[in-house]
Amino acid sequence: MNGLSVLPRSCDKIIQRIPKEANGHHHHPHRKLYDNDGEIQEYREDIINEVDEDTVRYPDGSVRLRNPNIELMDQDILYHLALGSGSHDLVEMFGDVKFVCMGGTPKRMEQFAYNIMAEIGHKLPCGTTLQDISHFSYRYSMYKVGPVLSISHGMGIPSVGILLHEVIKLMYHAKVRDPVFFRIGTCGGIGYEGGTVVISEEAVDGAMRNVLELTVLGKVVQRPAKLDRRLVRELKGLADPEDPYDTITGRTMCTYDFYEGQGRLDGAFCDFTETDKMEYLESLHKAGVVNIEMESLAFAALTHHAGIKAAVVCVTLLDRLKGDQVLAPKEVLDEWQQRPTKLVCRYIKR
Amino acid sequence: MNGLSVLPRSCDKIIQRIPKEANGHHHHPHRKLYDNDGEIQEYREDIINEVDEDTVRYPDGSVRLRNPNIELMDQDILYHLALGSGSHDLVEMFGDVKFVCMGGTPKRMEQFAYNIMAEIGHKLPCGTTLQDISHFSYRYSMYKVGPVLSISHGMGIPSVGILLHEVIKLMYHAKVRDPVFFRIGTCGGIGYEGGTVVISEEAVDGAMRNVLELTVLGKVVQRPAKLDRRLVRELKGLADPEDPYDTITGRTMCTYDFYEGQGRLDGAFCDFTETDKMEYLESLHKAGVVNIEMESLAFAALTHHAGIKAAVVCVTLLDRLKGDQVLAPKEVLDEWQQRPTKLVCRYIKR
Repeated sequence: MNGLSVLPRSCDKIIQRIPKEANGHHHHPHRKLYDNDGEIQEYREDIINEVDEDTVRYPDGSVRLRNPNIELMDQDILYHLALGSGSHDLVEMFGDVKFVCMGGTPKRMEQFAYNIMAEIGHKLPCGTTLQDISHFSYRYSMYKVGPVLSISHGMGIPSVGILLHEVIKLMYHAKVRDPVFFRIGTCGGIGYEGGTVVISEEAVDGAMRNVLELTVLGKVVQRPAKLDRRLVRELKGLADPEDPYDTITGRTMCTYDFYEGQGRLDGAFCDFTETDKMEYLESLHKAGVVNIEMESLAFAALTHHAGIKAAVVCVTLLDRLKGDQVLAPKEVLDEWQQRPTKLVCRYIKR
Repeated sequence: MNGLSVLPRSCDKIIQRIPKEANGHHHHPHRKLYDNDGEIQEYREDIINEVDEDTVRYPDGSVRLRNPNIELMDQDILYHLALGSGSHDLVEMFGDVKFVCMGGTPKRMEQFAYNIMAEIGHKLPCGTTLQDISHFSYRYSMYKVGPVLSISHGMGIPSVGILLHEVIKLMYHAKVRDPVFFRIGTCGGIGYEGGTVVISEEAVDGAMRNVLELTVLGKVVQRPAKLDRRLVRELKGLADPEDPYDTITGRTMCTYDFYEGQGRLDGAFCDFTETDKMEYLESLHKAGVVNIEMESLAFAALTHHAGIKAAVVCVTLLDRLKGDQVLAPKEVLDEWQQRPTKLVCRYIKR
C-alpha cells in the first residue's frame, strides 16, 4: 500500500519532492513557565519571546516543529486535510501564507474567504473561482486567498486540536515565515449583550485553569493557554469608535460541553438549579471571564507551544446572565457573525 | 426577539403546538453505579435496567429527560440541529424513529442514509429525494429514512456531546419509544489489522477510566461510560462467517487528541520516543483495549445516562502496533468504512 495514492491532489500542482534543508533542528525539552492556580500570570514577554524564538523558529522566522520525528519521515500525510508532503508541493502551494484564519463552520469560513478577497483586492485569474482545498477530507474546509488561509475547525477542543497539529505541520513543510493565526468565533457573553466583539486575553478551562490538560501515554500533561498580549492590544486599537457595537478584551472560558459544561439549564440533563447556575456565572464574571466558548484553550495552548502568534476574536450570541437559549433571529445572528471578521480584516489590511 | 424566526423549517410541516401531557415526570437524583479504577465492572444488568426504566423512561417506553426544566419551557430550541419544539411539529416529523445512527462526516452519513434506504426497501414519493434536515445549522447533517435517522457528529467528545444532548431532547419531544442509538465510526486498531470491525464492550478514557469526566459549575462530575452488553452480543451474532474480515469485541479507548493523545509520533509536537509509545500501546493491548477513537466515551456515557440502548461499531484504519499514519489507498478505506454500516444494517433489518 502506498500513501501517495490516498490523496487526491486538491490543487493542480506537479508533485515535486523538495530535499529537506540541513537546518540544524535540535529537540529541546519543554519549558514549564505557566502557573495553574487560576491567576493571570504577569510574565515578562521578552523572556518568553527570546526562548520561543530559540526553540520554535528557524533564524529566518519559519516554523520549527517540536517533534524531531517529522524531518526524518519519508513523507508526512496530513490525513484530515487531505494533503501530504509527498503528494503535494506544499512550499509552492502554501509558501506565501501570512495569516491563518479559523472558525467553526465550513459555511462561515467560505464566506470569510470571499470577504477577505474583496477587502484585500485579491484577483483570481479569469475563469477561476475558490476551491475547497480539503474537500476530499470530508472533515475540514480550507480556502486560500493570496496570503490568507481560511479553514473551518468544527466544534470543540479535539476537533480544533487535530486541525492545529496538521496546520502547524503544514506551515513547517511549506516553510511559512512568522504566520499569525486567528480564531474567529461565536460565544456566550458573561455580562455583555449579544453582538459584542470579544478579544481573548487568555483562555481558561471550566475550573479556571489557564492550561490545556491532555493525557499523553496515560500521564496528564499541561500546556499554558497563553495568547499574544501585543496582538490583543493591536486588535483592540483597530476597533472603530464608529462601530455600532462594543469591542472588549477579557478572559475566555473554554469548556468541553455546551450544556452542563457551560451551566445551561436546557440540556438533556441538568442536576443544578437556576440559583446554582447564577452563582456560578456571577463568580466567573467577578473573575474577569467575559465569554465562554469551546475551542480557545487548545487554540491558545497549541499555537503558544509552537511559538505562533495567535488571537481569538469572538462575537457574543447572548448574555448568559440573562438566559441560555440563542433566541436572536437568523438575520441578526448573521450580521453579528460578521463583526469579528471585520476586525481581523482590518488587521490583515494594515 | 422571537425564537420562532430563528429556524428555517427543514420539512414542510405545519407548525402545531402539541399540549404537553401530564405524564407525572419527577426529577430523580443520579445514581452512581460505576467504578473508576479502570477495571471492567461486572454489574447485574437486571438491576441497571430496572432502575433505568424507573428514572429515564415513561411507562410507554418513550424517553424521559433527566432535566426537570425542559417540560416547563415554552419552547425548546435545538440550536445546533436547526430545529425547535415551538417551530416544528417534532412528533409528526420524528415520532416514528426507531434507530439513530451517527458517524463522523456528513458525506458518510448521507451515504449511509441511501444505503439503509435500499436495504430496508424504503420508497420515497415520486419526485422527492432525501434532504439534509439540519442543513441550516451548518453544524451537523441529518437524514431521515423511515424509522432511521442518520446524523453526522463531527470529531471529538464535545462535538458528539452537543449532538447527543439535542438528539436525546429530540427523542423526548417527538415521544419516540425505545430508540436504539449506533455510532458507526473509524478507529485505530491495537493488534488488529486495517479493515477489522470492532464492537465496543465499553469505553475508557486515556487513563483507562470507564467514565466521562466533565466539569459542571466548576466541579468535576463523572458519568459511567457503559454500553448495552446484550446489544453487543446481538451485533456479534450478526457477523457472517462468510465476511472477508474479522468482527471482534473489546474495550475501546477514547481520547481528546488524535496525535499526542493517541501516542502518535507524527504530530506537530512529540516528547516521547518510539520505545515509550510501543510500551504504552502494548500495555493497552494487555488491558484488553482493541481500538482507539475519539467519541465513544461521550456516546456511551450520555446514552447510558439517558437510559438509551446504544452500541459503537467501528472499523480499524490501521494497526497502531505497526504504525501511526493512515496509508491505505482511498478506495480501500472507502470499502472498509462500509463494513460497520453493513453490520448495523443487518440489525435494523432483523
